[in-house]
Amino acid sequence: MTKTIGVIGGMGPAATVDFFAKLLEATPAERDQDHLRVLIDCNPRVPDRNAAIAGRGPSPGPQLADAARGLERAGADVLVIACNTAHAFAADIQAAVDIPLLSMIEATADAALAGNRSRVGVLAADGCRRAGLYQRAFAERDVEALFLNDAAQQDFMQLIYRIKAGDIGDASRRAMERLAISLNARGAQAVIAACTEAPLVLNADTLATPVISSTDALVARVVAFARAG
Amino acid sequence: MTKTIGVIGGMGPAATVDFFAKLLEATPAERDQDHLRVLIDCNPRVPDRNAAIAGRGPSPGPQLADAARGLERAGADVLVIACNTAHAFAADIQAAVDIPLLSMIEATADAALAGNRSRVGVLAADGCRRAGLYQRAFAERDVEALFLNDAAQQDFMQLIYRIKAGDIGDASRRAMERLAISLNARGAQAVIAACTEAPLVLNADTLATPVISSTDALVARVVAFARAG
Repeated sequence: MTKTIGVIGGMGPAATVDFFAKLLEATPAERDQDHLRVLIDCNPRVPDRNAAIAGRGPSPGPQLADAARGLERAGADVLVIACNTAHAFAADIQAAVDIPLLSMIEATADAALAGNRSRVGVLAADGCRRAGLYQRAFAERDVEALFLNDAAQQDFMQLIYRIKAGDIGDASRRAMERLAISLNARGAQAVIAACTEAPLVLNADTLATPVISSTDALVARVVAFARAG
Repeated sequence: MTKTIGVIGGMGPAATVDFFAKLLEATPAERDQDHLRVLIDCNPRVPDRNAAIAGRGPSPGPQLADAARGLERAGADVLVIACNTAHAFAADIQAAVDIPLLSMIEATADAALAGNRSRVGVLAADGCRRAGLYQRAFAERDVEALFLNDAAQQDFMQLIYRIKAGDIGDASRRAMERLAISLNARGAQAVIAACTEAPLVLNADTLATPVISSTDALVARVVAFARAG
């Protein structure tokens, strides 16, 4: 019997749809009944994670813990969060439930290790950077994490909020590509889309180095976990 | 305060992703927090609806009722089912909860009324036809419902199960288009994609008459309901 996956989502909702779609694509299935059961709490009312981490807004921790409890009660055997930055509150979430929370940060950092890389670029939101999530994950793996410089990081955050507003057109795609290329130019052997809005516009085909999607990395990990039964 | 939408899904999962994606697109939003909260139980293990209605398998009624109760307990204010055929078990579902269940069949039949139509084509699965869901809805509205002839209906069901297996390529698109055109040829003033797998491959642009998607009709109804607060 496979496990039921609980998804804490809504940060943003389009990233949750993307995660859900990729979860299906990654599940070998010939008929409905071969697919995994997935419970999703897409709650876009969770307070802004970046504002909270910067000390400019309320913590989303209690609402994320509530979502975790609700998913466990509804039958989830394992939890995931379809948002990198929200992993700053992973301890609040794990403390609220008895089922495991699979980390998007760990799954992504492990995926980035392939190919013996020593330096990777990380496209991450302000809150994710400030909370040190990827810095810690890569320090443990002895890989250097390169982040955008200050001006580019401001552009990145504006772009993320534009994507959240639904703008995933060519201009957004080109802007994300330019930011990724700036990390390549500084020696990144791969670029990590470490914000779940990034894969909505990042086209790996036009970059000189691989793009590692945090969404895909977590999908692969949770599908393997759920199918292990 | 907007209402929280509970989605009974998984029939099939790709149709649930499609419903979820269209729900987001239909919600006016500039930032995450403008979106509606959506709870989804994507449970592909629900027994086959068509087999049950034909008397060849167990009823999905109890599992659908369980999903409804779980979504209500998790905070849903209103329920929808992202599957037309499963509406044959709507009474079981409604009896299990105190919150309203908005009907995809009613929403779609209302959408089809626009333009003073007297005859509409209905692409519906065997179980949906056998349960008389659209026949009743159109009889109440004094509109003639045209269904596929027997041979075409068999092709349609094979196509639906192919789509459920992930085949949404050009051959599937052309096959669905041919079926829709056969209804046009018999005088249908519009064709209703009355199975949530149909909009995954039906391209309205190439038909002589409008295509009415049951997914879009329910999305429009539930977004209006939830935003009415």
